[in-house]
Order: sequence, then C-alpha cells, then structure tokens
Amino acid sequence: MFTEQNYTMLCDFYQLTMGNGYFMTEYADKTAYFDLFFRRVPDNGGYAVCAGLEQVVEYIENLRFDGDDIDFLRGKGIFSESFLDYLRNFRFEGDVFAVPEGTPVFPYEPIITVRAPAIQAQLIETMLLLLINHQSLIATKASRIVRAANGRAISEFGSRRAQGASGAILGARAAYIGGCAGTACVISDKLYGVPATGTMAHSWVQMYDSELEAFKKYCEVYPDSTTLLVDTYNVLKSGVPNAIKAFDEVLKPLGKRPKGIRLDSGDIAYLSIEARKMLDEAGYADCKIVASNSLDEYIITDLLSQGAKIDLFGVGERLITASSEPVFGGVYKLCAVEENSEITPKIKISENVAKITNPHFKKVYRIFDNKTGKAEADLLCVYDEEIDRTKPIELFDPNYTWKRKTFSDFTAKELQVPIFKNGKLVYKLPKLDEIRSYCTEQLKTLWESVLRFENPHNYYVDLSQKLWDIKQDLLNQKNR
Amino acid sequence: MFTEQNYTMLCDFYQLTMGNGYFMTEYADKTAYFDLFFRRVPDNGGYAVCAGLEQVVEYIENLRFDGDDIDFLRGKGIFSESFLDYLRNFRFEGDVFAVPEGTPVFPYEPIITVRAPAIQAQLIETMLLLLINHQSLIATKASRIVRAANGRAISEFGSRRAQGASGAILGARAAYIGGCAGTACVISDKLYGVPATGTMAHSWVQMYDSELEAFKKYCEVYPDSTTLLVDTYNVLKSGVPNAIKAFDEVLKPLGKRPKGIRLDSGDIAYLSIEARKMLDEAGYADCKIVASNSLDEYIITDLLSQGAKIDLFGVGERLITASSEPVFGGVYKLCAVEENSEITPKIKISENVAKITNPHFKKVYRIFDNKTGKAEADLLCVYDEEIDRTKPIELFDPNYTWKRKTFSDFTAKELQVPIFKNGKLVYKLPKLDEIRSYCTEQLKTLWESVLRFENPHNYYVDLSQKLWDIKQDLLNQKNR
Repeated sequence: MFTEQNYTMLCDFYQLTMGNGYFMTEYADKTAYFDLFFRRVPDNGGYAVCAGLEQVVEYIENLRFDGDDIDFLRGKGIFSESFLDYLRNFRFEGDVFAVPEGTPVFPYEPIITVRAPAIQAQLIETMLLLLINHQSLIATKASRIVRAANGRAISEFGSRRAQGASGAILGARAAYIGGCAGTACVISDKLYGVPATGTMAHSWVQMYDSELEAFKKYCEVYPDSTTLLVDTYNVLKSGVPNAIKAFDEVLKPLGKRPKGIRLDSGDIAYLSIEARKMLDEAGYADCKIVASNSLDEYIITDLLSQGAKIDLFGVGERLITASSEPVFGGVYKLCAVEENSEITPKIKISENVAKITNPHFKKVYRIFDNKTGKAEADLLCVYDEEIDRTKPIELFDPNYTWKRKTFSDFTAKELQVPIFKNGKLVYKLPKLDEIRSYCTEQLKTLWESVLRFENPHNYYVDLSQKLWDIKQDLLNQKNR
Repeated sequence: MFTEQNYTMLCDFYQLTMGNGYFMTEYADKTAYFDLFFRRVPDNGGYAVCAGLEQVVEYIENLRFDGDDIDFLRGKGIFSESFLDYLRNFRFEGDVFAVPEGTPVFPYEPIITVRAPAIQAQLIETMLLLLINHQSLIATKASRIVRAANGRAISEFGSRRAQGASGAILGARAAYIGGCAGTACVISDKLYGVPATGTMAHSWVQMYDSELEAFKKYCEVYPDSTTLLVDTYNVLKSGVPNAIKAFDEVLKPLGKRPKGIRLDSGDIAYLSIEARKMLDEAGYADCKIVASNSLDEYIITDLLSQGAKIDLFGVGERLITASSEPVFGGVYKLCAVEENSEITPKIKISENVAKITNPHFKKVYRIFDNKTGKAEADLLCVYDEEIDRTKPIELFDPNYTWKRKTFSDFTAKELQVPIFKNGKLVYKLPKLDEIRSYCTEQLKTLWESVLRFENPHNYYVDLSQKLWDIKQDLLNQKNR
C-alpha cells in the first residue's frame, strides 16, 4: 500500500554524515530546534496554502532503518559501527508543532517546528521539506486556479504529466485541499477520498468507424452520465452535431438528459460560445460544457473575460506541476539548541539578507480584527511569551521599525498545534473534506488585496519586541 | 519496497469507463495500437533523452487489481459485474516495443508502441505517460546542465524540492542517466546505484559555538573526506579563513589533505575566485571548490564565462523539477486497430495542426551517415516496410515535401526493440551504468548544431512515402 511506504532512506547523505558526526562527538544528546518555513510565495502570490502534514505524520511514524539499509550504509565505509547500531534502533522521540493543513501561510513563519535530539531532528529534514513543499505548492496553485474560475468547478486532470507517481497521487490530494472539486486519478480517490471522475479519450472516438457511432455507443453504456468529447475531428462541423444526434437518438427515447460535452483543443472561447448556441437550439440548455487543454488561472481568467460558455474546467499539467513556478522553496533551519534545559537561540547569516533566519524557539500568532473578522498580521514571539489580550497590541515592521500599527479589539490565535510529543502522536488528523472546508473558511479571513493575483498586498509577518531584540543581538555578535 | 509498488489504480477514471464500455460492446476483443510520443523538446532544446522504461516494465509486471480495488470500483455504481470480474483477472497480455533508455529522441516519433486488446492498451496509458514523461524530462534537463558544466561534475541535490517522493527517487535516477555524477539522495543509491554523497548543512556549523570549532570537529570525524560549507556567516571573512585553519590544525598533523569547500550563497563567481586565491596561497591548491544555490545550465554557463573557479556543481530544484519547463508533454494516441488480422490505421485530427497524429503501426529507423558516424534523420515507416540498404535512400520533409535529401552511404538502425511479447518480458533490462554510458555515446552521434542551447537545428523526423500517402488519405477522408 502506498501509505505504508517506509521512506527513512529518502534523506540527503549529509544528514547521515552529520548524524554520525554528532554521534561521535558530545552533540548527540543536545536538543536541536528546527523551523520549516519558506521565503516567498510562488507566482508572486500574496498567500500560500500549507499542505502535506498528514504525510509527514505517516513518515515519522514509519521511521526505521531495516537490516538492508544498515548493510547498505556499512558498505559506504565511513560510518562507525556504534552509529549503525544507533540507527538500527532509531525512532523519532521528539516534539513536532505544525500549522494545520489548509491554513493560509506567509513567508518567514514556521509551518513546522521540530524539537528533538540533534541527529533525529536533522535526519527528517529532507522528507519534511519534500512533503510540505510539494503539497503546499500544489494546494497554493489550486487555490489560485479555483479563484480564477469564479465559482465554476475545477477538476484535476494531470496525472500523466506529474513528476512521478506520488506527484500525481498526493498532487490530487493537495489540489483538492486547495479547492478543486475532484480529480481524474483513481488511486487518489481510493486512498484519500478525492472524488474521481472521467468519461472518454479521443481513442474512444477513433476506435469506432465513425464519431456518431462512438457517441451513440457511449450514450448506450452510460445513459445517466454522458459527457462526450467533441474535438477528435472538427468541433463545430462534426463533434457537436454528432453529439446532439446521439443525445436525440439514444438518450431522448430513454427519457435521459446528457451531462455534458468536452472541448480539448482549439479556440475554447469561440468554440464554447458556438457550441452553447447549438446545444441550446437543440433543446439541450442543461447540457454542460467542459473545457480542458493547458489551462491555468491566467487562461481561465482570459476565457471568462471573453465570454466563454464553460461550466467546468479540467486542469492538467499546469496544476499538477505548478508549471509557472514549480518549486515551493521551503527550508529547514536550526533556530536553537538546548542543553541542561537552557535554550540558546541560533541564527544563520548570509550575504543575501533574505536568507538570514529568525532565531529561537518561537510561537506564531495570527491577529484577527474582531470587527471585520479579517486576519491583519502574524506575529512571531519567543516560545515563553504570552500575548496580553486585555491590552491593545502594537506591531511593527521588522525591517522598517518606524512602521507601526496598533490593534485594540483583536483575537490572537496560535497557528501551530502540537503534533508529536516525545515521539508520540498527539494530534487527531482531520479528514480530507474537513481540511478542504477549513481552507475555504480561512481564505475568507484574508483581505481581497492579499488574495489578488497581480501585485498583492504584502501580509505582515512581524516579530515581537523581545524576539526582534534577540535577533539584533545575534546579528551584531556575528558581524563583529 | 519502493520497487514493488502496485500502481494499477494509478490510472485516469476514463480508462475504466472506456474499458467498461469496450467490454459491454463488441470492442473488447479488438486489438488496439497506441504510440507514446511527444511534440516538442522542453526549453526549446534540439533533443530529448528518453528514460523511465525500467519502471514501465516493473509497472506492467505488477499490474493487477486486488479485492479492495474491485470493491472500491463497485462502489462507484457504474461498472458492470462482468467487467469487475474481468478486472479481477486482469493481466497485460499484449506486445510492447520501446526505444531503450538513454537514447536521444525527437518529436513525433514513437518512444513506446503498445499492441494489445483495447481495454489493456487503454488502461496502462496514464502510468506509461507519467513514467516516461517524468524521467525523460529530468534526463533531458540533466543532459543540458552536464553539457553546460563542460567536463566538471554535476551532483543532483534536489530531493527536498522534488514533487513527491518518486520525483526525488526516480528523478535522481534520470539525472544520472542524463550524465550527472551522482546524487545527495540516499535511497536512490540503495535502490538504483546512483552514487550518493554529502557532507554538511549550515546546521552543523550553527550547532557549535564557533564556525572554527564546527570545522575542526568535522575534520576530526572525516579526515579522509573533508568538504566544509563556508557560507554560514561570511565566506571570505570567516568561512574560508576558518576552513584553512581547520585544515592546518587538524588535517595537516595527520598528513591528510582536504577534499573541498562548498559555496551556497552570494556571488558565486567572485567568491570562488577569491576563495581559490586564499586556498592556493595557503597551500591547498588541490582543495576543490563546490558550488550550489539555484543553479541551472544558464547560470553555470554564465559563471564559467565569468571565470568562476568551480570544480563541481551541486544542482537542486532547477534540475529535480526541470523548473524552466517542468512538463515533458508525452501523449499516448491510438494509431491503428486490428480485427481478424487486418490492421486499420487511425488518425486524430485537430484544429491545431501540431496535434494531428501519425497513423498506423510503425517502425522507426535512425539514419546514420557512415562517413561521419552522425545521425542525420529518423524515418517513420509502416510496420511491414523494409529499408533497402543496398540503394541510396531519399528522405523528404513531411510538411514541405520539396525539401529532399538523399543518403547513399548510410546505416539504418531500428530504434524500438521488443519489450513484451504476449505479456511476457522479452527484454533484458540494462544496468543503470550501461544506460548512462549508452546515453553519452549516443549523444556523440548528434551534430553540435542539434545539441546547442540556443536555436538548435531541427533534427529531421520524416515519413516514408508509403506512410505519408496513408496519412494524406486519412486526412482527406476525414475532412470531406
């Protein structure tokens, strides 16, 4: 079964060399804190939708090296036998905090925070990044495409162009979280309950001696769910007329109504308008028009502004690979170490200012304005800070500190929730439909200016005064 | 185990609705021929490298629906019990012909041809496309990046940004076929023998109280394979000086030499030149410089033209997702049907001329000029045509038929080889290293004009006169 895969060996080699290194020195028992966060939203968007946590949980629960793995690693000739022994009994024993799937998230805030013995926290880096980066990428893209369709349903069609099997399977899951209505991918329905649908390919039409015969056969087999693909030869000259003829000759005598026709090539705007007229004139105003063929949020916006008569979009490669920007750049950075219960904040400095990290074990609050219900900013605090909800709160831009804003009637909601405690799962995974609904609800808390495609408003992710001071201190120290 | 996955249910729903449809009509026993081909090379390149066949073989050999699958499908309420019975005993019983992995391939030629009962040939569409599209995409991108590096080694570093686990695991395999020297992904080494290497992340440096201490510890643990990451704080002010100090203080007394330093941010050209000077002056002229950070074939070309002193490149997200164009647009189209041993060619017509298919069960020849050893053109023929090698051969452009070229001293090599015969594997899968070497060799048969990045020469894929005539006949019939 796909969900029972053991991906322990899907790590970067340096996690093992570092693990062995920590093991050989006094650092094995140090506790490390890592934040998983990203630095910018793909497609210059204003928000991202985080996804992939369920798979992170499965991965961590299945973490173990088998005898084959140990033999393979021994063959590398650089790991100590005592470290290999340690790996043989390796289990994850740390804490994990995470933002629930479907939550809109913003650059520089920790989506996941891991607190664990250094070797353990380090080993899980690659898979945590891979799982969160992949599904957040697709959920975010899906959310954009769904908004472009303005209430019309989007079906995910891209398995054949996905980058590998899990790209297809979990991509369909993420697209559903982001608001798609369903998928063409059967296994994603079986494993995750993403509703799968589908009708016919061009090959069905080609297989028969004529298009009309192919259409009539399909109507006979599926009188209750007939959607015909009308562009195998010529949409307006043969496809739509033959579809209407098949509806008339096969469905009508049975008292059945057709579900739809599908356009998959050509000028979709023009063809859909003409096809709509032909269907309406033939008495099939209730027959939906489905469009596919290299669609994305930009083309859908254009088609609708041109008056295209489309009821449902099938979106393939540009969704399942997020082709306009196919990378969600999540990173996993050490933010603190703990020894003898003392937590020392850590920072990574870079020539590239955007790559400087926010140090320390942190909490993330989302500040909602109680009057509007809208999310106004997120606030990163040190782990032991509490927001005093009885007083107004003043937030400031971490780079331009004179930019300040005060909220008096607000709600502060902690974004991360505990997932693992001492290696034990303490989180009840929500069902996929719940995640999808939660995502829809949470997106309503964002201002339109944050949601828009072009030049969206930059949502604030601020630091508390205490955290800001700690960061400045570390920067000054390291630059000395 | 990853390689034993059963992906039978990773199909598009319409394959099952069509399958059920064929089953309910007289078409179940018709034999269908499908071609898997692509229409354009990503990144406007002149050639692609095909990959993924080994996984296609595994997929087909593992094809079977289990009881759970059947129950799930029954729940959909649209499949007949007799079709579900058929699926329960489903095995692939057809023939598969394919171009071996690592072969340079060109638009419109069949990479895979399937001949099987219609339902079987249709059912495997999605996975064949997914596997070939994904790995051909990455192998092709890797080939470009390797050529840009002009003899310097490329290591694949991108697992964390891959689109799913199989994107990482098989992406590393495909990158190796395309010429990469290795990967950071441990499981790809274990499963496929792609050499995995790695040293340290920024977290190793941050974990210690000082950069120098972190470097010295690493030298102590790995005196024979020391590569230090020098950009955690400041490359030239602290990273390289501390690396040299660690080499001096730990390695020198042991009589060991360092392997390298790694740059992962900032102006890599400038930093590498300065770091090279510092290393050389300190007596470490043999210490290599490794560079990473959002590299691809364009940036590598630029860096080298700016005189960057880099010995090895680590390439991450832009390779593992082929981010500049993350889709390899392979399609799977019906080209013929067979009944009572008579093969009828089939065509798909489109408003979009580029989407018109080449009909019929075909053979593909690559024509090599015997004087130069170079590949001059590929020729698609009808399955029963034989090339008369004793006479000159005249090829013509299928669109501009007055463009003609004659070859007198040539070798014609059939590109596809039999993989399955009546459902039985008849192909010995080559080892991964053999595939990689084969790819390197075959690329040498292409002219530089086909290999270049910018505006490459359009390699000819022509039709035999017989095939061209059949296609014209079908076009004329359908447009009547």
